[in-house]
Amino acid sequence: MPGLSPSRLEAIFQDLGRIGETATGMQRLAFTNLEQQAYDYVKSILDAENISHRTDAFGNLFARIEGTDPQAPAIATGSHLDTVPNGGKYDGTIGVLAGLQTLITLKDKGLRHPVELIAFRAEESSRFGHSCMASKLMTGFADLEKWKQSPDAEGKTVFDALADNGFGPDRLDEARIDPSQYKAFLECHIEQGRVLEEEKISIGVVTGIAAPTRFRIQLNGVADHSGATPMGLRHDALVSAASIVTTLNALASSEASHGTVGTVGQLDVTPNSMNVIPGLVTMSVDIRGVQEESIQRVVDGLLAHVESIQGVDVKVTPLSAEKPVQLDRDIAGVLTDACIDENITHRSMLSGAGHDAMYMAKIMPTAMIFVPSNNGISHNPEEFTPFQDIWNASQILTRAIERLAE
Amino acid sequence: MPGLSPSRLEAIFQDLGRIGETATGMQRLAFTNLEQQAYDYVKSILDAENISHRTDAFGNLFARIEGTDPQAPAIATGSHLDTVPNGGKYDGTIGVLAGLQTLITLKDKGLRHPVELIAFRAEESSRFGHSCMASKLMTGFADLEKWKQSPDAEGKTVFDALADNGFGPDRLDEARIDPSQYKAFLECHIEQGRVLEEEKISIGVVTGIAAPTRFRIQLNGVADHSGATPMGLRHDALVSAASIVTTLNALASSEASHGTVGTVGQLDVTPNSMNVIPGLVTMSVDIRGVQEESIQRVVDGLLAHVESIQGVDVKVTPLSAEKPVQLDRDIAGVLTDACIDENITHRSMLSGAGHDAMYMAKIMPTAMIFVPSNNGISHNPEEFTPFQDIWNASQILTRAIERLAE
Repeated sequence: MPGLSPSRLEAIFQDLGRIGETATGMQRLAFTNLEQQAYDYVKSILDAENISHRTDAFGNLFARIEGTDPQAPAIATGSHLDTVPNGGKYDGTIGVLAGLQTLITLKDKGLRHPVELIAFRAEESSRFGHSCMASKLMTGFADLEKWKQSPDAEGKTVFDALADNGFGPDRLDEARIDPSQYKAFLECHIEQGRVLEEEKISIGVVTGIAAPTRFRIQLNGVADHSGATPMGLRHDALVSAASIVTTLNALASSEASHGTVGTVGQLDVTPNSMNVIPGLVTMSVDIRGVQEESIQRVVDGLLAHVESIQGVDVKVTPLSAEKPVQLDRDIAGVLTDACIDENITHRSMLSGAGHDAMYMAKIMPTAMIFVPSNNGISHNPEEFTPFQDIWNASQILTRAIERLAE
Repeated sequence: MPGLSPSRLEAIFQDLGRIGETATGMQRLAFTNLEQQAYDYVKSILDAENISHRTDAFGNLFARIEGTDPQAPAIATGSHLDTVPNGGKYDGTIGVLAGLQTLITLKDKGLRHPVELIAFRAEESSRFGHSCMASKLMTGFADLEKWKQSPDAEGKTVFDALADNGFGPDRLDEARIDPSQYKAFLECHIEQGRVLEEEKISIGVVTGIAAPTRFRIQLNGVADHSGATPMGLRHDALVSAASIVTTLNALASSEASHGTVGTVGQLDVTPNSMNVIPGLVTMSVDIRGVQEESIQRVVDGLLAHVESIQGVDVKVTPLSAEKPVQLDRDIAGVLTDACIDENITHRSMLSGAGHDAMYMAKIMPTAMIFVPSNNGISHNPEEFTPFQDIWNASQILTRAIERLAE
């Protein structure tokens, strides 16, 4: 396949990695000058390659190569260019990079379907507290009233930021896309986990995106003297909390074959003193999976266990219960075939984190591929993926999109 | 028995409770003007009753009624007058109050043995970080070098405080007492637990003072993304920590008949974020009991469990392993007989907290009685004991000491 050479593609990646780079990681937050610089840089590459592009009312970039059939819907690919504060150079960026390679490689192929690269704005929730803002808007899942009440640390809403950047806060309805104009969406992203690295596999073909079901649990016991209170008179909130941690771990482990996971990530003890029995514990529960029945079995098991707790008052507050997203099997098959053709190690897997593909999947057939994350690290300057894996992903993405666009 | 009337004894208690009283509890810290005012008030009562007294180099008050036999060793009783910050009116004070009633009741009885009331300084560790300073000093267990390196919040050591109050920081060796001059020590104190209250019993006859065996445990796992890390790839420090909490609770519960208790009072999770698997947990373990073999079984079981933990690196740091103190059975028998004679509900029990009696027991036969603590609360303005129970305790203490002094 023609297209950019590996050294040229890596040079573009490195150029992007310098936009917003600081001693403590990437600082390319949504709708900042630095994010805009990254967009301008991508546009300069497109211009040099004579690939047409447009920017929508939300600032999203759409680059496009036309197909031979004016009626044929487009195959789209892409990801985001914003980062979290103190973030890495890979999350989001490599999906735009791989899509750029796809367009450049396929631009003179005379394919029947158009091919589009979308660079989504504001995927990270860091600035305005909402994730996947662009893809929510494009697909009709944005809650603009909530966005109006979600200012950043300096008091600016996303509408203020859009106006500052010369985009169209008053015509965001124009950013909605027409599903009939698209045949598929494919996103390439870093894994943000350690599965590919541990198994020494270059490409993950994602079959579903997990959705979190979250609870906050508060346990009220009695904070007695640790020496003066016999075991039989205790109402130890931490002992009950520990049973919840253990039960959740066992329930999720028994659902491991379905990819379901359960985590208590946050746990606070009051008064948290060596010689006082814990009187109060608050804890978070985060359950994720792609199979709704499996998630429900974990939730049911957990709530049944909570019901059985005695001597401590337990209050469970549901925080969210999002539906998992199944990705398109046919496109996953095309991606797998591409890996086989290119002789690149691959496996099917699930995504634990959310992505723009999650919203695109609501209105069109959607697929994702993952590349390994060193030590599973993301949202951190230590984010790293060997360039060979990024190169492999750009080739697989290009080959699969070529197949879909024929 | 003659002696102060209940209303007079209660009035004295209330007078003492006004010395250092604030909107947020008692503030009568060791060697402050307020503690000294409490000493002066007690001395004024003794003077009015024509009971002689002296103050030693550490500021401890010794009130004494002489016996008919100049060779006979004394029976001593007492407790402390200092409080923690935001403390209660009962902890310590009622032991001095009961002893005062004992001396006043017995002063004209012509008993063979002398009877002494000791009001110990600095039992609470709040100001200088060391507990039972007076009783440690009297019995030869004080580590003066450590005291020199333990200033209060304003940078003053206990030696500075002694000098400020006109006591003898340079002659603390004079505060050492001669065990041959004492036949017994008896301390009356609030329970600081809920055993007596739950069982509706007025007097606890203490048979042993538990000593804490303490550990700090640090668990190092891996802080991965809660969504992107399958159950089988996790190194969740909190799941392992929960197993320690559960195991300790089970081990201590199985030793409940020996009075052994085990508590994880402190537990801190890092990074403590909803969507990150806990990478680090630090926790405290506090095991107490009066039977060394029972304590050891809990410690051994806990360490065996820690050994069995896999996938998370566990580091156990021993902090202390004090020896429990057995109190004198003969004096406990005299106290029990007194309860029977006075027809006051009683039971034998253990002390989970430390007291000056713990050090006195190292050099002379020692006993303690407890009165109920409302809700088990101590070191808090909500500390409360019905006056009837305090009255009962003063009567039991007086009757037992009379028996021992005959």
